[in-house]
Amino acid sequence: MQNKKRFFLLSIKIFYICPDKRFVRVNTIYTSKDLKGLASKIGPGHRVFVIIDNNLKQYYRYFENYHMLEIETSEIKKTMETVSCIYSRLLNEGADRNSFILGVGGGITTDIAGFVASTYKRGVKFAFVPTTLLAQADASIGGKNGVNFQSYKNMIGTITQPEWIYECPEVLQTLTPREFRAGIAEMLKTFILFDGAAYSQAAAYFSELNDLLKKQGSCIYNGEFYKNDILEKLLGLCAGYKGRIVEKDPNEKGERRLLNLGHTFGHAIEKIFGDAGKDIMHGEAVSIGIILAAKVAASLGRTKESFVIRLKEDFEAAGLPSELPPDPVSGKKLMLSGLMEAIKKDKKIDGDFIHFILPEDAGRAEDIKLELKKLESIANDLC
Amino acid sequence: MQNKKRFFLLSIKIFYICPDKRFVRVNTIYTSKDLKGLASKIGPGHRVFVIIDNNLKQYYRYFENYHMLEIETSEIKKTMETVSCIYSRLLNEGADRNSFILGVGGGITTDIAGFVASTYKRGVKFAFVPTTLLAQADASIGGKNGVNFQSYKNMIGTITQPEWIYECPEVLQTLTPREFRAGIAEMLKTFILFDGAAYSQAAAYFSELNDLLKKQGSCIYNGEFYKNDILEKLLGLCAGYKGRIVEKDPNEKGERRLLNLGHTFGHAIEKIFGDAGKDIMHGEAVSIGIILAAKVAASLGRTKESFVIRLKEDFEAAGLPSELPPDPVSGKKLMLSGLMEAIKKDKKIDGDFIHFILPEDAGRAEDIKLELKKLESIANDLC
Repeated sequence: MQNKKRFFLLSIKIFYICPDKRFVRVNTIYTSKDLKGLASKIGPGHRVFVIIDNNLKQYYRYFENYHMLEIETSEIKKTMETVSCIYSRLLNEGADRNSFILGVGGGITTDIAGFVASTYKRGVKFAFVPTTLLAQADASIGGKNGVNFQSYKNMIGTITQPEWIYECPEVLQTLTPREFRAGIAEMLKTFILFDGAAYSQAAAYFSELNDLLKKQGSCIYNGEFYKNDILEKLLGLCAGYKGRIVEKDPNEKGERRLLNLGHTFGHAIEKIFGDAGKDIMHGEAVSIGIILAAKVAASLGRTKESFVIRLKEDFEAAGLPSELPPDPVSGKKLMLSGLMEAIKKDKKIDGDFIHFILPEDAGRAEDIKLELKKLESIANDLC
Repeated sequence: MQNKKRFFLLSIKIFYICPDKRFVRVNTIYTSKDLKGLASKIGPGHRVFVIIDNNLKQYYRYFENYHMLEIETSEIKKTMETVSCIYSRLLNEGADRNSFILGVGGGITTDIAGFVASTYKRGVKFAFVPTTLLAQADASIGGKNGVNFQSYKNMIGTITQPEWIYECPEVLQTLTPREFRAGIAEMLKTFILFDGAAYSQAAAYFSELNDLLKKQGSCIYNGEFYKNDILEKLLGLCAGYKGRIVEKDPNEKGERRLLNLGHTFGHAIEKIFGDAGKDIMHGEAVSIGIILAAKVAASLGRTKESFVIRLKEDFEAAGLPSELPPDPVSGKKLMLSGLMEAIKKDKKIDGDFIHFILPEDAGRAEDIKLELKKLESIANDLC
């Protein structure tokens, strides 16, 4: 009964509306207790190539009937070279246009697998099995894929929708606390944008969960996730919001841009760390980026100081970073103004302006076209 | 008056039909006497990056207000490395998502420019100015783009439609006779597929034109193309047929496959020449591939021997090759059976079968699923 409830809770179909209001399917999200039901979703008649994170050996048994292409997953390896290596393996194993690609792993894996699938022989069908909180709540939904280029994040890619996404909460149990927390940032982001009540509930839940993580190093409590039902509800809500935005604006011409909250500073932080060969997780960088975006909003008089402080408290309680880390090269305090060079090469730049997302309150944010010079002057003031 | 007539003759809009029969624009083809009208098509409000064949210096003056990215165009340079080099230059010159890419050159240039545009920052808008007969009649229409991979043709790419295509017959005057003839092959192919009467007219025209080319090394006769009106009519017809197929089947799931007539053997020939570092033009390889496909059709009893002979005579009269060239490595006769290894990695492979296009008569061809073993046995018999 519990499993059935779970199945219906997260079984979401997302549509986008044609100009004439007809419905066209964008993403289908299947949810199930475990990976056993996967084979029936793939169906017969395809040669299946599984692009899988090589840290997921414990799940390999579910894919042994297919061609397995293990990949190393790190931001440094999320490059055209890795993509070329996969093209080469697909070609050597005889993958044809009727082949089916399944990306199994976190956001890096689904980004790479989606890009390979949308460009190999001009596009083959594909689907995802996201295995991190971040990928289930956000990264695997919406069809964006791609790789980094010259250490700039996701510079090369396409927007191509997978056939379906298979979400399976059990796989989250193997995440490290750090990996788990990185997903929390994107979930909190989604609720800041769209749902004040869910934001409050999520902030309280993740704070309790973080206490548990600190105490016992795992989210498992009495054999299952701590307050599993709440997590499932929040995941379902979050995937739903993401889906509805993608539905309305698949090519990020308008409303979908809201999802970039925290990502302007976040990507710049990732760039600086990546260039220094130092490790930072996407969710960690976004977490810092959201707090910085709130500070910018306060500078512009678009939110209250109390909201900035509330976000900072909530994020810290969830175990997320909220302050700029030390410069990975000099070890000195990293200045907000130091991020501007990377920001100037952001994908969201439009001439001398940048689309910048301002969090105004829990459940409300705005997309403004901010002059780069203005952002630079705010950055100088804040640091 | 002459110019106006020309304008209307080739001004074609191509649509594809949604499942509910609404019309959605796929390609708009503008035609004009010269390149002067181009600026008005691009319009203001974009930063324009022109990816241009570095052999086209005589046209650079039309693009000097834009960012010019010159590229070397050869099948050997049609690779991910060239694409990465262009990404890098776009990034360094600050191209953003609102930038506009214009591909100016032959099919190699438009293939590369289309792929770059459809993947840079997950896709920017783009258009083409095709400058060869082959690109105007065929390669630039339909949204297919891509690059070679490990010497296999067009292995990596997308199907993404340009905003428009600007066709300008004058630029054809600068083609060498060999380049010009390479375009004839694709035009004859299109008419073999769809229009017996146009095929006969084209075969007669290109035979006369070839006599002129042999005699004086140029297609210019009394200051303009030899029988300019006929060429324009044939080009318009050809682009129209290509467009209507793309309209019905943009993703090559059915009828569009017909356009691959001659390309199964053609791509294999290009692969063998490419691997040996030897030069062959796409149109030359396709020309040989069409005659070979007709021989396969005759072997299967799907066409008469007389049709094979007619094609061979017409292609030779147009100055096109019809026989397998000597092996570029050994110098010995290249055997049809020797092409099979390359064919087995063709994009059109579907398991143990290949979609093979059989020319049955002028104006009639069929797409069959041919067992690879069967094709191999025919190939052994023919050589």
